[in-house]
Amino acid sequence: MGIEGAVGRQSAVVLLSGGLDSATCLAIASGKYEVHALTFDYGSRHSREIESARRLAKHFKAKSHTVLGIDLGAIGASSLTDPDIPVDTHKAAGEIGKSIPTSYVPARNMTFLSLGIALAEAKCANRVFIGANSVDYSGYPDCRPEFIAAFQKAADLGTKAGAEGRGVTIEAPLIRMSKAQIIKKGAELHVPFGMTWSCYSGGEKPCGRCEACLLRQAGFREAGIDDPLGR
Amino acid sequence: MGIEGAVGRQSAVVLLSGGLDSATCLAIASGKYEVHALTFDYGSRHSREIESARRLAKHFKAKSHTVLGIDLGAIGASSLTDPDIPVDTHKAAGEIGKSIPTSYVPARNMTFLSLGIALAEAKCANRVFIGANSVDYSGYPDCRPEFIAAFQKAADLGTKAGAEGRGVTIEAPLIRMSKAQIIKKGAELHVPFGMTWSCYSGGEKPCGRCEACLLRQAGFREAGIDDPLGR
Repeated sequence: MGIEGAVGRQSAVVLLSGGLDSATCLAIASGKYEVHALTFDYGSRHSREIESARRLAKHFKAKSHTVLGIDLGAIGASSLTDPDIPVDTHKAAGEIGKSIPTSYVPARNMTFLSLGIALAEAKCANRVFIGANSVDYSGYPDCRPEFIAAFQKAADLGTKAGAEGRGVTIEAPLIRMSKAQIIKKGAELHVPFGMTWSCYSGGEKPCGRCEACLLRQAGFREAGIDDPLGR
Repeated sequence: MGIEGAVGRQSAVVLLSGGLDSATCLAIASGKYEVHALTFDYGSRHSREIESARRLAKHFKAKSHTVLGIDLGAIGASSLTDPDIPVDTHKAAGEIGKSIPTSYVPARNMTFLSLGIALAEAKCANRVFIGANSVDYSGYPDCRPEFIAAFQKAADLGTKAGAEGRGVTIEAPLIRMSKAQIIKKGAELHVPFGMTWSCYSGGEKPCGRCEACLLRQAGFREAGIDDPLGR
């Protein structure tokens, strides 16, 4: 990264949950841009993910890392934010994605992208990276390419950056990749998978039974790579 | 509101800041729907508005009132959320709207609408009301009808409700009304204007100099109605 990279390097906001998708997304973005990481503390059941996000932001030398508190628990209606709704468990990854799961958080990516755009405006960044993917997307409607494209239009019209003609571009580099492809890409970019966290339950070790764990296991298996988090 | 109204009355989420636009919007919505009010506690300089929102929600017999904490101060870049950026002051309402003001909060309506849609999904409501208006809009790009229309498309694609074919419709009944027209509409619907709060500075009494105060004063004057908050 000689002088060329150092002078006038463009910057990007990366939505960083601490999971392996967003970690891979961070690796991709930080290869090209100065990165501002953005993590949401949204009243999900555990803060294990946030700790992973902090470590990843540091590892990839993010220029800044904003942890933004947002009380999605006030809305509820998801097993990730409402303790009264149990997390779905499955025996195998193949069972997942037949319907929208209880872990769906209403309008989550819409909210997170809005805030990503907001931070991009504040930091004069012209890109927002999101690790959404539609292949192993578990039935989340807000991980589909059509949604991202429609949201881009709304963002172009609804922001100062857009109104002033220097819009913020949403990048979803993983959107058409399978979990195994994401893991291979992450390995190629030296993502420290041991720092990432996927499990929805958030104990000391991954539960191995929630949809996030099952997709992760199946992905590592298919990629032929060992998961440093074990199970 | 006979039996017809009582049985199967549809419900709506109303974004309620506590200002006179959102109060009028609440009055409009509560005439037709069972209302769930949603107020954001977003680290703006004062909580005077939130108290107004609480009183208004009670006055209009909202079925529920959610006050959702969101730390927009972590993003900053607005005089409403960053104490280091001064609130614009003006001598007259005519000076306002020539450029995007310092009170612009990056991607605010995008974020608030996303959360409004989220609450609508959680409450099985099929409408979200927002008091945005584009006439005295002070140069906020996210108050324009084109933005609302584009956001609607994104919401249809990015939500469970949309994916299941029962979308959430965004209603912006004030979008083409001037402040004076909004005040006349509010008066017609018996909005208790004394409960509303517009001033950005948030002391005991309105400051009379910020853009919100000036637009309010000019609106009441033009409508030929007395503002119970005085100046």
